[in-house]
Amino acid sequence: MDARLLIMGGAAGPALLVRFVELAGAAAARILVIATATEEPETAEEFYVDTFTALGAGSVRPLRLTTRADANAPGIAAELRAATGVFFTGGDQERITTVLGGTAADSLLQELVAAGAIVLGGTSAGAAMMSATMIVGGDGPGVTAASVRTGPGLEFLPGVLIDQHFAQRGRLNRLLSAVARYPHELGLGIDEDTAILTDGDRFEVLGSGAVTVVDAGAATDIRVPPSGPIALAGARIHVLPAGHTFHLTGRVPGAPAGENRAGDRGRAA
Amino acid sequence: MDARLLIMGGAAGPALLVRFVELAGAAAARILVIATATEEPETAEEFYVDTFTALGAGSVRPLRLTTRADANAPGIAAELRAATGVFFTGGDQERITTVLGGTAADSLLQELVAAGAIVLGGTSAGAAMMSATMIVGGDGPGVTAASVRTGPGLEFLPGVLIDQHFAQRGRLNRLLSAVARYPHELGLGIDEDTAILTDGDRFEVLGSGAVTVVDAGAATDIRVPPSGPIALAGARIHVLPAGHTFHLTGRVPGAPAGENRAGDRGRAA
Repeated sequence: MDARLLIMGGAAGPALLVRFVELAGAAAARILVIATATEEPETAEEFYVDTFTALGAGSVRPLRLTTRADANAPGIAAELRAATGVFFTGGDQERITTVLGGTAADSLLQELVAAGAIVLGGTSAGAAMMSATMIVGGDGPGVTAASVRTGPGLEFLPGVLIDQHFAQRGRLNRLLSAVARYPHELGLGIDEDTAILTDGDRFEVLGSGAVTVVDAGAATDIRVPPSGPIALAGARIHVLPAGHTFHLTGRVPGAPAGENRAGDRGRAA
Repeated sequence: MDARLLIMGGAAGPALLVRFVELAGAAAARILVIATATEEPETAEEFYVDTFTALGAGSVRPLRLTTRADANAPGIAAELRAATGVFFTGGDQERITTVLGGTAADSLLQELVAAGAIVLGGTSAGAAMMSATMIVGGDGPGVTAASVRTGPGLEFLPGVLIDQHFAQRGRLNRLLSAVARYPHELGLGIDEDTAILTDGDRFEVLGSGAVTVVDAGAATDIRVPPSGPIALAGARIHVLPAGHTFHLTGRVPGAPAGENRAGDRGRAA
């Protein structure tokens, strides 16, 4: 079974959260909520435990990982192995990567996700940390090297750089700045109440907003001066609302899910 | 001689303004300042008359066009024909189009620009009105039909849609929204203290910021629902700082001006 990641851009409404519950098994779901990103984990844990329970999850409980010792504690493995879904809340993505990065919990999560044994969900900081490279700061105007600071994420979804609260916080300039510097990474800007659901090498967009994909791999010319505006010629951009799909390796958008488009060959033929 | 347009994204500094003076003839320049866009034309007129004079223009004076009667007045023709440069200030672009649109002054300006008899400059609203389609409102988050309202400009530069104060006001979403609806128009987002200088079918970027070009003509799929996010797959985006060039008809960026690039053939051969 392929890895399933449900990566939300923040402020997720019930339709997205119930999708996570269903992917985790609904009444049979055993969900762990990890609120490491926030300094007030009790509030976030309580919110998601109550919400996922109200949305029909069989079992939901917090997994409190505050320190690296917590994330290396022997008991964690059994808890993670028993889960069908793990959900990372919002907060500061660097708290997640510094507490979990390289720990036993990190390694086991990678293994469980790769094996398709769990669905891994995350919102806001919990989305950013899933990417190979995450944006950790920078909101200056324009497309400049100084407009963005990046750091390595936990790489559940390799080859991408995820930004969140995307339309709501007007972050296209910083995503352009990031992928101009690192065109190997595909830039994904996820709006609030919007998510991508991965299925192997493909993702589908869910929710009320859109996912903006910036592909600087297509660029014919990139120049990043230490100060002043970046030059980025020939990049591609895709704005994909719910139902649209994207193939990550080929870097091409697909037809909306369930739609048979001109150019697609019928499978029945 | 080809039409020369110097189109500034607002908040232009001395380097851009002196370029306008030079293009108009420097000590031999006869510049008219048209402050129709603003309800307080005296202030804008005084600023640009003083500035252009300080920057070496031979003659600078305001041409006050407040009403359509002003723009159709018989005396205007002689004033415009005597000018080497005409400059439109900022304000509200719809004031310019409603006062000038279709008047004798509009017709004569088109003729003088096409003949290369004058350089036409404009900043902010004075930039927006030069395009075929101008953005007249809308700043909502996301890429949606409601995020942007457009109207016809005075079309000094056909086939483009210009937005201004671009990076500073985070307007990439509204430019994407506009070109998704009207992919015939090439979207140009001009930062503050930044300009394009046209030379026939080509423009060069000047100033301290960048010009963002969004080409939805390249899109493979566009869907604009009455509400909710727009789908725009396969568009191209170029972020072009000073010195970079762009060919409007081919919709391709060129090498930075004065740079001999791989793939370019030397002219001396």
